[in-house]
Amino acid sequence: MTYYQKLEQHYKKYARLGHLSAICGWDQASMMPAGGNEARSEAMAELAVLSHQLLTEPQLADWFDLAERESLAGEEQVSLKEMKRSWQMANLLPESLVQEQSLTGSKCEHAWRTQRAENNWHDFSKNLEPVVELARKEAQIRSEETGLSRYDALLDLYEPGMTTKELDQLFADLKSWLPSLIQQVQEKQGTETVITPQGPFPIEAQREISLEVMNKLGFDFNHGRLDISVHPFCGGVPTDVRITTRYDEDDFTSALMGVIHETGHARYEQGLPAQWHNLPAGEARSMGLHESQSLFFEMQLARNETFIGLLAPLAQGAFMRPDDQALTSDNLALVSTRVKPDFIRVDADEVTYPAHIILRYEIERDLIEGNIEVADIPELWDRKMNEYLGLSTKGNYTDGCMQDIHWTDGSFGYFPSYTLGAMYAAQFMAAMRKEMNIENLIRERNLTPIFNWLDKHIWKKASTLSTDQILINATGERLNAEYFKKHLIDRYLK
Amino acid sequence: MTYYQKLEQHYKKYARLGHLSAICGWDQASMMPAGGNEARSEAMAELAVLSHQLLTEPQLADWFDLAERESLAGEEQVSLKEMKRSWQMANLLPESLVQEQSLTGSKCEHAWRTQRAENNWHDFSKNLEPVVELARKEAQIRSEETGLSRYDALLDLYEPGMTTKELDQLFADLKSWLPSLIQQVQEKQGTETVITPQGPFPIEAQREISLEVMNKLGFDFNHGRLDISVHPFCGGVPTDVRITTRYDEDDFTSALMGVIHETGHARYEQGLPAQWHNLPAGEARSMGLHESQSLFFEMQLARNETFIGLLAPLAQGAFMRPDDQALTSDNLALVSTRVKPDFIRVDADEVTYPAHIILRYEIERDLIEGNIEVADIPELWDRKMNEYLGLSTKGNYTDGCMQDIHWTDGSFGYFPSYTLGAMYAAQFMAAMRKEMNIENLIRERNLTPIFNWLDKHIWKKASTLSTDQILINATGERLNAEYFKKHLIDRYLK
Ligand SMILES: [Zn+2]
Ligand SMILES: [Zn+2]
Repeated sequence: MTYYQKLEQHYKKYARLGHLSAICGWDQASMMPAGGNEARSEAMAELAVLSHQLLTEPQLADWFDLAERESLAGEEQVSLKEMKRSWQMANLLPESLVQEQSLTGSKCEHAWRTQRAENNWHDFSKNLEPVVELARKEAQIRSEETGLSRYDALLDLYEPGMTTKELDQLFADLKSWLPSLIQQVQEKQGTETVITPQGPFPIEAQREISLEVMNKLGFDFNHGRLDISVHPFCGGVPTDVRITTRYDEDDFTSALMGVIHETGHARYEQGLPAQWHNLPAGEARSMGLHESQSLFFEMQLARNETFIGLLAPLAQGAFMRPDDQALTSDNLALVSTRVKPDFIRVDADEVTYPAHIILRYEIERDLIEGNIEVADIPELWDRKMNEYLGLSTKGNYTDGCMQDIHWTDGSFGYFPSYTLGAMYAAQFMAAMRKEMNIENLIRERNLTPIFNWLDKHIWKKASTLSTDQILINATGERLNAEYFKKHLIDRYLK
Repeated sequence: MTYYQKLEQHYKKYARLGHLSAICGWDQASMMPAGGNEARSEAMAELAVLSHQLLTEPQLADWFDLAERESLAGEEQVSLKEMKRSWQMANLLPESLVQEQSLTGSKCEHAWRTQRAENNWHDFSKNLEPVVELARKEAQIRSEETGLSRYDALLDLYEPGMTTKELDQLFADLKSWLPSLIQQVQEKQGTETVITPQGPFPIEAQREISLEVMNKLGFDFNHGRLDISVHPFCGGVPTDVRITTRYDEDDFTSALMGVIHETGHARYEQGLPAQWHNLPAGEARSMGLHESQSLFFEMQLARNETFIGLLAPLAQGAFMRPDDQALTSDNLALVSTRVKPDFIRVDADEVTYPAHIILRYEIERDLIEGNIEVADIPELWDRKMNEYLGLSTKGNYTDGCMQDIHWTDGSFGYFPSYTLGAMYAAQFMAAMRKEMNIENLIRERNLTPIFNWLDKHIWKKASTLSTDQILINATGERLNAEYFKKHLIDRYLK
């Protein structure tokens, strides 16, 4: 057996433990009764230790050295490179730091669940400070090893290749036109009459529509399921993708759009190349690219008014309301594209969402680089919310800087993925439109060419190319925010 | 840290991996889409290897030696003894034999699924022969190590302390009165008029009754769930017990009695002492004792006609059939106690069930001891079925010697547990009756004293006592089949 093969075997073992963790994690969020939590958390932690041990076994350094001297096929070289990236990521940090981060993050997150409801910034900030300190230590170590800046070294975990330099440019551009766009859209929408659909919309009927739409969107039910959880997510493994949603009897559109979003994530996973399953080269390329697929499905496809033309009759049928004026295609298209600056990121519309992200990016970047401190966050949050969305969060931590889970457990560098995803998605759609008439395909209920394009250019590439290269191969150029801008103007101002 | 504590820690780690295996196994049977099976099986196999490695780490031998010289509290000595038993069981067999057994068993079981349907004994027996050969090898090794006979050494895996000598006696006694009892019961029942309930019985209503009955039976939904699987089982972990059932629209009694049966298994697990969770001393004592709890719930309690008096109104209500004469207490009591010799063990009633077990016991005992060969099975099966139940299985392998899964993967020594469980259950009920009026408690809907008795005498004892000692403490004597006989006569002939 070659050393490359030894490494492959080792990584497949690692992936199999990841499989168990993914399924038990899904179970914990969607099936497990509350009383099972303690033992489950212990079992998952034990597995995490075993997995980490696998990636830090001392012989791996030699194996990588030796494998690099073997004569490998081109795709094996790519696979080796991704295994090595994963190995380096796992071995950079001292065990003690990883453990301290895990404990400190768990403590902060656990307390945050009550503190957020109580608007208790004072106590929360005391827990957040050590989390930030440890993240800075991690950033420092990663920075020294990679030569990247401290924040970039964290960003690289989620969006390999992306840098502060590029983000600063992209977001400066966005900031230059977004506030006025938001204002123009609001003025335009102020003249429109929208009928808000009135519940109750029975859960069973909502589930029925969800499954039907997932079918139309090509979700493979032989390799996945739809269930319920408090916080919707896409989990499981590529051969068995578990997506979840949360139904609201008063509003069927949020669950429906949520299911479509997760279906985008799911198809990326289901579409990953089988020959690379269980190896790093076979994983989704980046968080931003992952989000580009969910946002392609939700924003580019499902909120397109032609697509709403398919959803409306489904809703009218499932809820047995053939004559409900709130469920006409035209009205649902309006409902699905409302724009309104508000406090909560996860509830934000497509137009105001980037403002939430830029705000968080600017704060976490400066926090990790050591330019600001935890105590500075509330004032910065308030000032930026005023600037970007015209809202004040003064004294309102619950709906301000305490709303997200990301920082509580130390996931700094993740937020940009959301807006990168939106930009990638718009760029993919623009490229696709050069090859096909999207609206005609939707009207003909023939979405296959669309999915085939994504499958060929993104899903089947997995991590065998860089994000940049995937974008260039698929669209002819690197990330270009103009497509996102044009998408918003076309949809919201025309 | 003492060596005893080191061992405890090691076993808790082992149990946490077992937790993940239990949940992923439950998922595989009740949730997983078919396309997820291959990757899941690989992941589970990887975990099994890791678990086995934990129990065979070389330092454990020293740790046990050193721990045995430590001054330990009484209950620690018990715990150490059970850890050592588990360790010895895992270390007796050479790795190569374990692997060969796993491969050969999987192959035989996999092919059996089609061969059984095709009544293809010829091909099946070719796969069964090596399975038996390997089981004989295992029995030989275990026999040499334990001093038990070869079959007893396998029996000991499922029912520690039980021997061929005792089983031969118990079953010889049973055989002396069972055939005539069956005949008498059939004659008596021939004169009774029973109305078979006519479906459809909607699944949703069946599930509703199941949940309500589980509640009445004290199932803790904060530490468990009810779901659906093709083959009902009780899985999960003590803090999160997963039971399953299978609904039939034409017959609600089978799912209902199945749920009650699994609830008995579940309460044993949920009732295991928390201070011993994740350690061998905290596990259920034996397969027979486990089955005694499910059969106590199903046979001793639920098929008692006073208890049927509680179930009948539930059924009438859930199915909205207040006047259905098939759903009266009296008729349902008759329905729940029908006796009819038939071919299939899993569908057998309480009276004929032991005949199925004795037959299997006699064959597997002689097979493992080398007194008969695989080729002898069909003729023996036919002869014994004729003798015990008056039925011929000549040429009918599907409903004869190919009906069970147990032998296909080499689980020889398991079958006696079913009938031992039935006997234990009857003995427990007889002892309980000396302390309380069961029928009055049922009528008063006050089952708590019954469950408290089981909790105190069985569940909370876990594996800290031998089965014999549990029986003696709980009932004042060792296993005595007279209670089972008396139970059958009281229920079926009076
Ligand atoms: Zn997403
Ligand atoms: Zn059972």
